[in-house]
Amino acid sequence: MRQLTDRITDPFADSFTDPLGTAATQTGAEIRALCRSDLWNGPTAGVAPGYLQANLVILPREFAFEFLLFCQRNPKPCPLVDVLEPGVVAPSVAPDADIRTDLPGYRLYRSGRLAEEPASIAGLWQEDFVTFLIGCSFSFEAALIEAGIRLRHIEENLNVAMYRTNVPCRAAGRFAGPLVVSMRPIPSAQVALAVEISARFPNAHGAPVHIGHPELLGITDIARPDYGDPVRIHAGEVPVFWACGVTPQAIVTQSPIPLCITHQPGKMFVTDRRV
Amino acid sequence: MRQLTDRITDPFADSFTDPLGTAATQTGAEIRALCRSDLWNGPTAGVAPGYLQANLVILPREFAFEFLLFCQRNPKPCPLVDVLEPGVVAPSVAPDADIRTDLPGYRLYRSGRLAEEPASIAGLWQEDFVTFLIGCSFSFEAALIEAGIRLRHIEENLNVAMYRTNVPCRAAGRFAGPLVVSMRPIPSAQVALAVEISARFPNAHGAPVHIGHPELLGITDIARPDYGDPVRIHAGEVPVFWACGVTPQAIVTQSPIPLCITHQPGKMFVTDRRV
Repeated sequence: MRQLTDRITDPFADSFTDPLGTAATQTGAEIRALCRSDLWNGPTAGVAPGYLQANLVILPREFAFEFLLFCQRNPKPCPLVDVLEPGVVAPSVAPDADIRTDLPGYRLYRSGRLAEEPASIAGLWQEDFVTFLIGCSFSFEAALIEAGIRLRHIEENLNVAMYRTNVPCRAAGRFAGPLVVSMRPIPSAQVALAVEISARFPNAHGAPVHIGHPELLGITDIARPDYGDPVRIHAGEVPVFWACGVTPQAIVTQSPIPLCITHQPGKMFVTDRRV
Repeated sequence: MRQLTDRITDPFADSFTDPLGTAATQTGAEIRALCRSDLWNGPTAGVAPGYLQANLVILPREFAFEFLLFCQRNPKPCPLVDVLEPGVVAPSVAPDADIRTDLPGYRLYRSGRLAEEPASIAGLWQEDFVTFLIGCSFSFEAALIEAGIRLRHIEENLNVAMYRTNVPCRAAGRFAGPLVVSMRPIPSAQVALAVEISARFPNAHGAPVHIGHPELLGITDIARPDYGDPVRIHAGEVPVFWACGVTPQAIVTQSPIPLCITHQPGKMFVTDRRV
């Protein structure tokens, strides 16, 4: 797991504390306790290995049906790990957690504009808030590495390269927009293995949505991702594209809804559920 | 397919017309056109073989988030085939259909009481109605028969035996209640095959939820099902239990919501989608 642990010095993290030297040996509950006490504000890649992590989207009740419908219609980018009842702060995938304090950092959007990046949203909580936890790719990345597939962005300590595509998601009410994908270069001989392994993680975007030929997704320059860092593709490697959890976030934060809260990029909610 | 076709004379159907002699060779679109013209009001088991069929639940928008959440939390009894936007009558799984007229028959519940059994709901339609289409077991039954597994309720022209269990569904808002299961007696040597085959149909309740030992589900008398007909279990057979689409229907119709529409038992919506 050293490669994943190294990624704690991820460029996503401007500055963060790690009083234990490393968070890589912790459980989900331990990481959440550190977040709650403001002792951990770093990214969660490689943290609490073996525990399922999730993207966070919080919306007022008024938008909950449409967003749940959006997730149901787009299960590859939006695999639902948990949806909480209005006002509830403890997910079933981590019953002792408090969703308002147990992430390393939050983003608050007002009418589609980033307004704040608080360490806690306890003071902002509303009884009509509905919390969505959406699977993230950290889970299958660890499985790929264990199977002997090297992931360049992790080895080079970069964030994964992500691209907006020309593939529209299935719209739901006011939520519409393009699929965002992450790309990992995989040696030709290991592409099939990468498909087989990631397909076992439907909670973490599952099998790739596209293999090879970025131009067919509307990606004109693979060296210039829309999010994350560019990652080189070596001779004999194929660009493999997975549906990405940035999709719902991009769509929600760009919608003209009055208020919406997400996690800060790379700083996920760590559940109690084993991968 | 003769066995399935025979089931058109299902006890669910009090009386129905079949101007073509049999509906078993039709497509989804053809069956829907017959329903729309009031030329078909029979049950849909064995009808339009190879086309995915679905249970129908229509609720006012006010209850849509909670019911969608209920389905998302209980995917075995409630596999979502399609969810329509408020007021929309054409499902994506049958774009030319009209959900108000294209089923053999409807049931209208007011405050949890059966109020009407109309052949069409066009005159009752409200712009805030949200339609849910939920997978049904007819799809995997055909596959079991093709694999050489004999289904006694079909051979004896009975409705499948269904039981309320003591297993609670995961509640969502105002929707809560027990899992309802269907039971099919399967010879010991074919139980594993029945699991393998039905597991391939997640849209149609997927693999069984329980095999053998009805008492562990709280079923005290297997000869007295709560819905459908009793079916004998022969020596060397094991009772195999699948999650049943009656679950959401029982829960919704027993909830104190002002208005709710479902299909009549056994008279499903036939989609354009191939199984």
